[in-house]
Amino acid sequence: MTETFEYVKEITKMSVDFDRWYTDVVRKAEMADYSGVRGCMVIRPYGYAMWEAIQRAFDDMIKSSGHENWYFPLLIPEELLMKEAEHIEGFTPEVAWVTEAGRSGKLDQRLAIRPTSETIIGSIVRRYIQSHRDLPQLTNQWCNVLRWEMRTRLFLRTAEFLWQEGHTFHAFEAEAKEEVDRILEYYREVAEDWLAMPVLVGVKSRSETFAGAVYSKSIEAMMRDGLALQAGTSHFLGQNFSTAYEISFTNRDNQREFCWTTSWGMSTRMVGGLIMAHGDDRGLIVPPRIAPTQVVVVPIFRTDEERARVEAFIETWEKAVRAECRLKVDWSDNRPGEKFNNWELKGVPLRLAVGPRDVEAREVQLADRLTGEKRQVPCAGLFEILPHELKKFQNALYQRALDFRAENTFEVATLQQLLDHFKERNGFVWAPWCGSEECEARVKDESGGVSIRNYDPDEKPSGVCLVCGRPAEHRVAFARAY
Amino acid sequence: MTETFEYVKEITKMSVDFDRWYTDVVRKAEMADYSGVRGCMVIRPYGYAMWEAIQRAFDDMIKSSGHENWYFPLLIPEELLMKEAEHIEGFTPEVAWVTEAGRSGKLDQRLAIRPTSETIIGSIVRRYIQSHRDLPQLTNQWCNVLRWEMRTRLFLRTAEFLWQEGHTFHAFEAEAKEEVDRILEYYREVAEDWLAMPVLVGVKSRSETFAGAVYSKSIEAMMRDGLALQAGTSHFLGQNFSTAYEISFTNRDNQREFCWTTSWGMSTRMVGGLIMAHGDDRGLIVPPRIAPTQVVVVPIFRTDEERARVEAFIETWEKAVRAECRLKVDWSDNRPGEKFNNWELKGVPLRLAVGPRDVEAREVQLADRLTGEKRQVPCAGLFEILPHELKKFQNALYQRALDFRAENTFEVATLQQLLDHFKERNGFVWAPWCGSEECEARVKDESGGVSIRNYDPDEKPSGVCLVCGRPAEHRVAFARAY
Repeated sequence: MTETFEYVKEITKMSVDFDRWYTDVVRKAEMADYSGVRGCMVIRPYGYAMWEAIQRAFDDMIKSSGHENWYFPLLIPEELLMKEAEHIEGFTPEVAWVTEAGRSGKLDQRLAIRPTSETIIGSIVRRYIQSHRDLPQLTNQWCNVLRWEMRTRLFLRTAEFLWQEGHTFHAFEAEAKEEVDRILEYYREVAEDWLAMPVLVGVKSRSETFAGAVYSKSIEAMMRDGLALQAGTSHFLGQNFSTAYEISFTNRDNQREFCWTTSWGMSTRMVGGLIMAHGDDRGLIVPPRIAPTQVVVVPIFRTDEERARVEAFIETWEKAVRAECRLKVDWSDNRPGEKFNNWELKGVPLRLAVGPRDVEAREVQLADRLTGEKRQVPCAGLFEILPHELKKFQNALYQRALDFRAENTFEVATLQQLLDHFKERNGFVWAPWCGSEECEARVKDESGGVSIRNYDPDEKPSGVCLVCGRPAEHRVAFARAY
Repeated sequence: MTETFEYVKEITKMSVDFDRWYTDVVRKAEMADYSGVRGCMVIRPYGYAMWEAIQRAFDDMIKSSGHENWYFPLLIPEELLMKEAEHIEGFTPEVAWVTEAGRSGKLDQRLAIRPTSETIIGSIVRRYIQSHRDLPQLTNQWCNVLRWEMRTRLFLRTAEFLWQEGHTFHAFEAEAKEEVDRILEYYREVAEDWLAMPVLVGVKSRSETFAGAVYSKSIEAMMRDGLALQAGTSHFLGQNFSTAYEISFTNRDNQREFCWTTSWGMSTRMVGGLIMAHGDDRGLIVPPRIAPTQVVVVPIFRTDEERARVEAFIETWEKAVRAECRLKVDWSDNRPGEKFNNWELKGVPLRLAVGPRDVEAREVQLADRLTGEKRQVPCAGLFEILPHELKKFQNALYQRALDFRAENTFEVATLQQLLDHFKERNGFVWAPWCGSEECEARVKDESGGVSIRNYDPDEKPSGVCLVCGRPAEHRVAFARAY
């Protein structure tokens, strides 16, 4: 038997070792695998199909608000990358460089493989911006980027990854800030409405801000080990980049002014997020809205005659069901039990088992991956029942994640309480904070890596900073994070 | 006025200088532009949207026949690239190398940016192939590739380009050969049915075969300067790659056997093809099926009161029309004449002009980009008329290209006739050929670059080779090509 069609797949239980569970699930559910190339993964069809679903959902959102897809060069000349000081500092340790090419050999100037494209996009889009009438420019691209990571993890942290990066150029500061929020809301929608993964929406602390940004906002999800995952970020760049890259326009008063810019990105990391937000000991649980297969049918038979009867029965309702949901009938040679295990591991939301007695009764056995419940359902109404069950499943999965987050969310008042908490367990821990980098750094140092995930900038807390006791500026969510 | 919104755009006439016409159209119709990075272009939204339409069409076709999308690493270790001798020879002169990365600096081994992915995909997919039951593996990826080109041309030949590359693994030689033909048929469909661009479907001569393939097939379109464009290729790799990369399976007789493999690709070059297959002196003509905007509405008014009336009138039928086709209403500040020119340059198939008198009569003026014809049409039936007109347009555009090809297709019997022909004009020139590389090379040398585009392997000609006079093996199409 091959790895691909090996149906009895032992995976480490989530409750035993979360990290090994994750890698087992990613590999054995055929989502992704190691590639043999340092830091790079291969995304397999089952994982890639989920990425395609996420892409389609987000692409529709941004197009509906006038954003346009472009494609910009993979390679960025060193000189160009080096114009914005903070940005350079943030990214040069992670850059891979092309230094030789073609017959001619050595290049005059090193070319960076894009770690992100603010610099190249700014330097190109500036040509198309002269007057305020050319603004806003709402630019997006779907592409691969490369950041030379030393410690990699499938989907979550790889040298090369796939993402979209949006870069927008505005005449007004307020409009650019609205754009940052609009996109953050889209990210929230992708996470919560499509991936059933509740998120905290808020501002990052200074130390966690994107290199070169005025401020960064993020969505932060809770994984089932209680760690946080930053699943999308939206940055207000002010005039930092437009000044460094001379991106200016003539305003209504006929004066030259630098553009207000934003950038925002969401990557294949999102796929890692949905795996860790929803799995269980038996494997993946895939949210119906992005599931490549929403309903799997497992035919059960002993003889050719039984098989023929089961097949004929399935054919009577298959087409009507296919019109309503993504259905797969598993006719492979494996035993029914192996098929059950495999599709549970792959997290297909609903399973229909169909044997000769079901044919007799003109019904099927419907099993729910989330609750494990099974019940007999008449075949006549399947095309109506299944879409309804999938909706229910999507909501229940979201509610389960919401409940899990609530159970793993805490409130502390002092650093000691926070340290005591994280000695025992993970989760989100809310605390008042004065806003100083010193206090933030102290939490991180003493806890061995707990960081501020984000905060609501409009919430004004009444307490005092958990570290220094000065009046609090913000109520912030602390967590260990991927 | 900015470059983006500059409506009066002079372009070189196609009839005056085809090459300058092409570059003018690509840049001024906002399809693509130079990027400032050597050999790389930037694809602008109007061009990218056409690529997205092509992607969707082809992606649907391959998924319907069981192909799956994966994503493989951008970087290929030098050692891995170097296993198949012919392939190395074909590609190493074009490879860009990453030699430095991250904090650590110099890499132990150079990493190639993929010029194509046979080597990396083969080395990964082999893991998932053990038995004949794991076959076929029908693998595709959409990605960027890089080939260090010295002479570049927007869309047609750039160092970096976007494409899909399919790589399939089969247990049987005949099945792999069928796959090559199935994909070639999809490429023909994309070219002819979507892009209205007739193509010759056939086998490449040995000297034009993909590096490492047993044979290559292609589709070849005729551009409006009479040159050929190879717009998609499908290769039968036999067991060449599977032997070099040890991709084997256990067959039904329980013996180890090397896989039969294929590879095939179609790129952003296709966008260049549709531009050159259909333009005219006034600019682009975009096939309706892939046109980002199929119908543009130009409102005509002098006063605010007139504008209000025209706007209210358009609103009465806009929604019904939008449900049937991709409509854009141009409310920009430019004069109607400027708008007409701009949308003609951009090749939007149908234009509706709507002025106060049209409001009165409850009709619009419909203009056809291909014929230039204008006629009054009642607004009531627009939602039915426009889809019908777009279908007619698509067919007429295809017929125009077919007629153009027929007018520019010739038959010769001797080398001298061929040389005389190409001294005068371009086009496709059919001639009998003995099959030898010597004769092929002689045509190329003496004509200054005319090559065999492809041929139908099943056609058995009766004549003698145009060069050597020996019995002909094939009747082949000669042309100059991009």
